[in-house]
Amino acid sequence: MNLPLKDIIVLEFCQYLSGPSAGLRLADLGARVIKIESPRGDACRKLAIENLWADENDSLLFHTINRNKESLIANLKDPEEVAQIKKLIAKADVMIHNFRPGVMEKLGLDYDSVRAINEGIVFADVSGYGSEGPWSKKPGQDLLLQAKSGLMFTSGNHDDPPVPFGLAIGDILCGAQLVQGILAALIRKEKTGKGAKLEVSLLESLLDFQFELLTTYYASGKMPERSKTSNGHSLLGAPYGLHQTSDGYIAIAMMPLQDLAEAIDCAALLDCAADDVFAKRDEIKSVLAEHLKGGTSKYWLDKLRANDLWVMELTDWKTLNASDGCKELKMEQHLTNGKFATKCPIRINRQDLRSDRPAPRLGADTADITKEFGLN
Amino acid sequence: MNLPLKDIIVLEFCQYLSGPSAGLRLADLGARVIKIESPRGDACRKLAIENLWADENDSLLFHTINRNKESLIANLKDPEEVAQIKKLIAKADVMIHNFRPGVMEKLGLDYDSVRAINEGIVFADVSGYGSEGPWSKKPGQDLLLQAKSGLMFTSGNHDDPPVPFGLAIGDILCGAQLVQGILAALIRKEKTGKGAKLEVSLLESLLDFQFELLTTYYASGKMPERSKTSNGHSLLGAPYGLHQTSDGYIAIAMMPLQDLAEAIDCAALLDCAADDVFAKRDEIKSVLAEHLKGGTSKYWLDKLRANDLWVMELTDWKTLNASDGCKELKMEQHLTNGKFATKCPIRINRQDLRSDRPAPRLGADTADITKEFGLN
Repeated sequence: MNLPLKDIIVLEFCQYLSGPSAGLRLADLGARVIKIESPRGDACRKLAIENLWADENDSLLFHTINRNKESLIANLKDPEEVAQIKKLIAKADVMIHNFRPGVMEKLGLDYDSVRAINEGIVFADVSGYGSEGPWSKKPGQDLLLQAKSGLMFTSGNHDDPPVPFGLAIGDILCGAQLVQGILAALIRKEKTGKGAKLEVSLLESLLDFQFELLTTYYASGKMPERSKTSNGHSLLGAPYGLHQTSDGYIAIAMMPLQDLAEAIDCAALLDCAADDVFAKRDEIKSVLAEHLKGGTSKYWLDKLRANDLWVMELTDWKTLNASDGCKELKMEQHLTNGKFATKCPIRINRQDLRSDRPAPRLGADTADITKEFGLN
Repeated sequence: MNLPLKDIIVLEFCQYLSGPSAGLRLADLGARVIKIESPRGDACRKLAIENLWADENDSLLFHTINRNKESLIANLKDPEEVAQIKKLIAKADVMIHNFRPGVMEKLGLDYDSVRAINEGIVFADVSGYGSEGPWSKKPGQDLLLQAKSGLMFTSGNHDDPPVPFGLAIGDILCGAQLVQGILAALIRKEKTGKGAKLEVSLLESLLDFQFELLTTYYASGKMPERSKTSNGHSLLGAPYGLHQTSDGYIAIAMMPLQDLAEAIDCAALLDCAADDVFAKRDEIKSVLAEHLKGGTSKYWLDKLRANDLWVMELTDWKTLNASDGCKELKMEQHLTNGKFATKCPIRINRQDLRSDRPAPRLGADTADITKEFGLN
């Protein structure tokens, strides 16, 4: 397939997850992504999950995020090397960095300096808290931003402690938005020749993600309150949530309460008024909790599905991975180094975007790129 | 500002959140987004959060997701009206739909039919589970997909029940990826004139989001296990997580255990080996839990920050919204109907992308669009 970002050159001055996840998506969409790494390399090379390593040098985590890229070593503290890198920048379409605010200025690689040698470049900047303001120098790490953004008050039940989202949600959302901004700017560049400076921050990404909560707060001054039992989304009425049955859990999405009560034969809920799903959310969920304990997950799912109501069994990964529905998606892709990774979730013209190229060893492409772009 | 997607026309045949959130982002980036709604309207108009309404017709939720768009009513079950809509499609750059698989084919608005009248169109398709396979007809709703995708086993502590993410994470990620695919395809269209069919699904988005867990599972066959206390990310070693103190909670990100032990004067952890952070994760977190109960959040944060370690206080939204660091971001924007919404999290050339245009009433733009595009 003629990938959509063919011939686009992206320079990635990034570590860890948010910036590199954007680079990965651009690579999967067809861009040529070159990681510019210090002689020590992206710190993520040494950050392991479950103590798993791709080889003696690099963690499986690094490997997963940085497949399908090239690696060039440069010491950006040396003005000579910065001068060489500028030759590369002159030929690039996009550069992404996630240094803390002020660092690119010190290195002489801030947007104004870079634009002077490449008018059309799309310069993308990832930070923790934005480039200005009292928090701009704080460490921008996913869990810390989750703690700072209010997000930990959305999951779990009312009497639980605050609950972190168990994955790096801020990094992933911020990286995704960075890709959006970059691609939009490239569209304008195609039409006008003009480049752009883009900025995203983990904090703004996590606040954007909480748009429902913030809009509610602006409108009513109300903080969200998780339900006492079966919390699903603190702003949605009953029965929305994960409910316990006699042998497991089932997810119940939004539906008219009357329909639910009839389907599961729950007399106590038959004459609730429509507004009660908010005003009496916790009481209704508590009645439901008692009622649902009286049958298995399958028993309730059958009854609810017979009425076309939106429900789902809870599936763990082993079951999921073994299921035909999941196999159909072929999320898994084999890399040439014998490892596996997940594929890009976007499909174009009925084809998956796959690449079997593993992450580069630190500096693996330094010699080739030096030659190709006439660096010293 | 000359917004990057100026002059791009997007037709949104979507309801609820995933597709419309993509439309919203495209609108904020400058596209003209026209919602094609049935005479009953996007069902989200009647879906309230906290029983809040923008006016007598539409929920605040709908209002928030669909600001900065136009609305055209069309009955797509009527072939005459479909013929009119095709005149609009002939002039559009992008169309997005989130009907269940097969519906667009029945309406005569599937990619092949549409491409016949607009070779360059970017046709984007959002589904729950992909357009083929045994699950393709199941209802694609966020909480249900969270239950189906394994995601509920990532948050909370080991002995907690499965915990839903308390926000519509699948919808948001899927919408974000749809935007990425659409913009990449538009870049190719600018260069080659060729359109594309794009597909994303909630399930693939949520599996992509769990790439660390899946890669680990492919490599080791291991399911993730949440830690007994202070869970942060089930694959990261101690001390990563949210930790209780004598008066609250603090988030502690990744750091060498030795540095942590010295900073908080915790002798019991001083001689842990590097691999212990995985092998003895729960024991270490349990020692930490006991130790941290001996001081306030501020006491520990001061000690940890004095050593440049990555930690953060837990902030609720009231505190957050009142803080200077948050005010600096100006997430809030005023709309012309007197309501508030959050702004787009992407900044271009130092400017926020703001629009004060509220969501359209159902069919508000039918007459104007009919005239402009010569429909009957």
